[in-house]
Amino acid sequence: MLKDLLAQRVNPDVPSALSGLFPKDDDPRALSFAAGSPREDLFPVAAMQAAFTTAIAENGAHLFQYQTAQGNPALRAKLAARIGKWGQVTTTADQVVLTNGGQQAIELVAKALLNVGDEVAVEVPTYIGALAAFDLYQPTYHAVPLQADGLDLNRLEDTLKQHPRIKLLYTVPDYHNPTGITMSVTKRKQLVDLANRYDFIILEDSPYRDLGYTHDPLPAIKHFDTEGRVVFVSSLSKILMPGLRTGWLVAEGDLLTAILRTRQASDLEANNVVHAAINAYLDTHDLDAHVAALRANYRDQCAALVRALTAYFPDEVAFTQPNGGFFDWVTLPPEVDTADLLTRAAIPQAHVSYVPGTNFYPARNVHNGLRLCFTGLTPDEIDLGMQRLGTVIKAAVREVRPVV
Amino acid sequence: MLKDLLAQRVNPDVPSALSGLFPKDDDPRALSFAAGSPREDLFPVAAMQAAFTTAIAENGAHLFQYQTAQGNPALRAKLAARIGKWGQVTTTADQVVLTNGGQQAIELVAKALLNVGDEVAVEVPTYIGALAAFDLYQPTYHAVPLQADGLDLNRLEDTLKQHPRIKLLYTVPDYHNPTGITMSVTKRKQLVDLANRYDFIILEDSPYRDLGYTHDPLPAIKHFDTEGRVVFVSSLSKILMPGLRTGWLVAEGDLLTAILRTRQASDLEANNVVHAAINAYLDTHDLDAHVAALRANYRDQCAALVRALTAYFPDEVAFTQPNGGFFDWVTLPPEVDTADLLTRAAIPQAHVSYVPGTNFYPARNVHNGLRLCFTGLTPDEIDLGMQRLGTVIKAAVREVRPVV
Repeated sequence: MLKDLLAQRVNPDVPSALSGLFPKDDDPRALSFAAGSPREDLFPVAAMQAAFTTAIAENGAHLFQYQTAQGNPALRAKLAARIGKWGQVTTTADQVVLTNGGQQAIELVAKALLNVGDEVAVEVPTYIGALAAFDLYQPTYHAVPLQADGLDLNRLEDTLKQHPRIKLLYTVPDYHNPTGITMSVTKRKQLVDLANRYDFIILEDSPYRDLGYTHDPLPAIKHFDTEGRVVFVSSLSKILMPGLRTGWLVAEGDLLTAILRTRQASDLEANNVVHAAINAYLDTHDLDAHVAALRANYRDQCAALVRALTAYFPDEVAFTQPNGGFFDWVTLPPEVDTADLLTRAAIPQAHVSYVPGTNFYPARNVHNGLRLCFTGLTPDEIDLGMQRLGTVIKAAVREVRPVV
Repeated sequence: MLKDLLAQRVNPDVPSALSGLFPKDDDPRALSFAAGSPREDLFPVAAMQAAFTTAIAENGAHLFQYQTAQGNPALRAKLAARIGKWGQVTTTADQVVLTNGGQQAIELVAKALLNVGDEVAVEVPTYIGALAAFDLYQPTYHAVPLQADGLDLNRLEDTLKQHPRIKLLYTVPDYHNPTGITMSVTKRKQLVDLANRYDFIILEDSPYRDLGYTHDPLPAIKHFDTEGRVVFVSSLSKILMPGLRTGWLVAEGDLLTAILRTRQASDLEANNVVHAAINAYLDTHDLDAHVAALRANYRDQCAALVRALTAYFPDEVAFTQPNGGFFDWVTLPPEVDTADLLTRAAIPQAHVSYVPGTNFYPARNVHNGLRLCFTGLTPDEIDLGMQRLGTVIKAAVREVRPVV
């Protein structure tokens, strides 16, 4: 009976995109390529412990008082400078908002923009958490495919011509979740031109931009923004630690005002204690050096995965060639359902888990993709896992494509 | 132009209930009774600093990894036990959700329940932040007056008869913000009976319940809940420190599932680092003893305010007699607009600020109330401030009610 009182956005008969993604496998041989978690052994734990002590000592009781929705000004200034240096985004602390992870930044942008039924364009596949945040505001989705150099802008423009009321485009331009694809610089500029022409907002979600294994970060889409149409979102979850729950966004004008207003109504303020500690950490540690160490590790893991996919997966299977980030995307023949394969064979036979691809599509209409995260396992474990998964996948492919 | 892309919920032409509440007065004589902030000199800063060190040392790197939407199980268990002891609520850790302050708990309940236009009943005046959170979901409000022993249940039932689709009732039963009123035990039980009969959810928001100056906390409304219709919300902001951004809620069944789902989509998780530190603090410190010390201080401030109001305010002015919490509510003759009085006389002449009452009404249709917070100033400062404000108020009353 109480169920009837729930809002449409949480219809209990429709499964949440974010729940049940990471199946349990208690077998000692289990190897998880599912969760997109960074490596704990690379976390600067002692340094952050000291930073909490310093921040509390330096700020005293006032640190624990009510503060502001926007968050710690010193940390905002550091993040503004950082995206200036590495993303060529000209901004200042007063355009930065500190959030509870990048997820809250995405949700606040959705909340500030979307009425029920408003039109949103997303690249597909796309980040599941973004779909979950958008779903809260019940939009109409338009799916635009990805190419090897990012969003297919011709298809996007076709979609815009057919649906000129599209209000928001969501993209992960750097080492995309779930495919690892990076958008070319040319396309970044063209995308802003389209936004100006067709009057929409770009939500640029870039938590992986510092984790390139072959080159420095590209200029952000926001670098090309001429009309305040791009909201840049990033996070310290992947380059520092996710438990800090610290994301941030850059926005301007009425849109910034609207975002701050929804933030205040949602949870009043940023977590100033944590943000003062991060600021103290950054005062005495070189984040670029830390990121370089992460890159050196993840680069080897990424290479091990691509090597193993090449060695163990059958020719009928395609996979991306990421040069940064956390993920690789594997495409099986259309007859293979990867959600079914996971529970029927991958976990019980290979003791390998991944995230089935369906959840990365707003219409849940594509069933033959899967996401592999390579950051949680050693190169040897990655090799072993892909050998096992390769065997299972070969069998599945042979079922639908028998060798004559 | 971009303004047209904003969602209706953040209409920039309608001022936010939460912005501009606390006017600046840089005069050295300024005394603020506006912000509802706890006293910083009573914050257990050194103990919390040590607790961060301990929590990080004991948990290590895993503390900073992705965790769960619901939050630290040990802290949830402690809060469940605490509301069992002091509120007679029978619950367990698995029904508790840790949130970013009580504000996020309120917003999540609104998000889980409200479609555009859904009907919500609130007591008036009511907490501004709750209105701001509800406003995000564009409900239709029904205002129910308060009496000296809490919500007027006859008026509520009349409203329910006229509007049987009311889905949610919001109430602050203990030392209410902004009036300081406490709901009687009898009414708590009757309110649950009404909820069962008229099929609505009660959002019981109780951040001040531990801060009673004359008696122990009453049983929560949730104590009388027989059908899982009451969501209990509280916070550590007023009894520990607001900068910890730690609120919590108790809910059950489908409603709990829906709330967790909206939480995950909104910002993924609770802040586990902060919550582990609070848990470590509670392992080695007696929160009841800390609360007793707060009560001893705030009790004197509360008494000083009531004494000063009695001494300095004219007979035409009514005020509540709080025996707990942070606030007193003052009612002037209907002809006096307290927002106008604030900027015209209270700040420039008396150097005293308060929150004008209009913002505490969803329809913004009552202009002669004002909220005073007594926790931020010493008894002497309270006396001085009310003496000055009393002079200004007497003049305003004489203008509309001349002595013949």
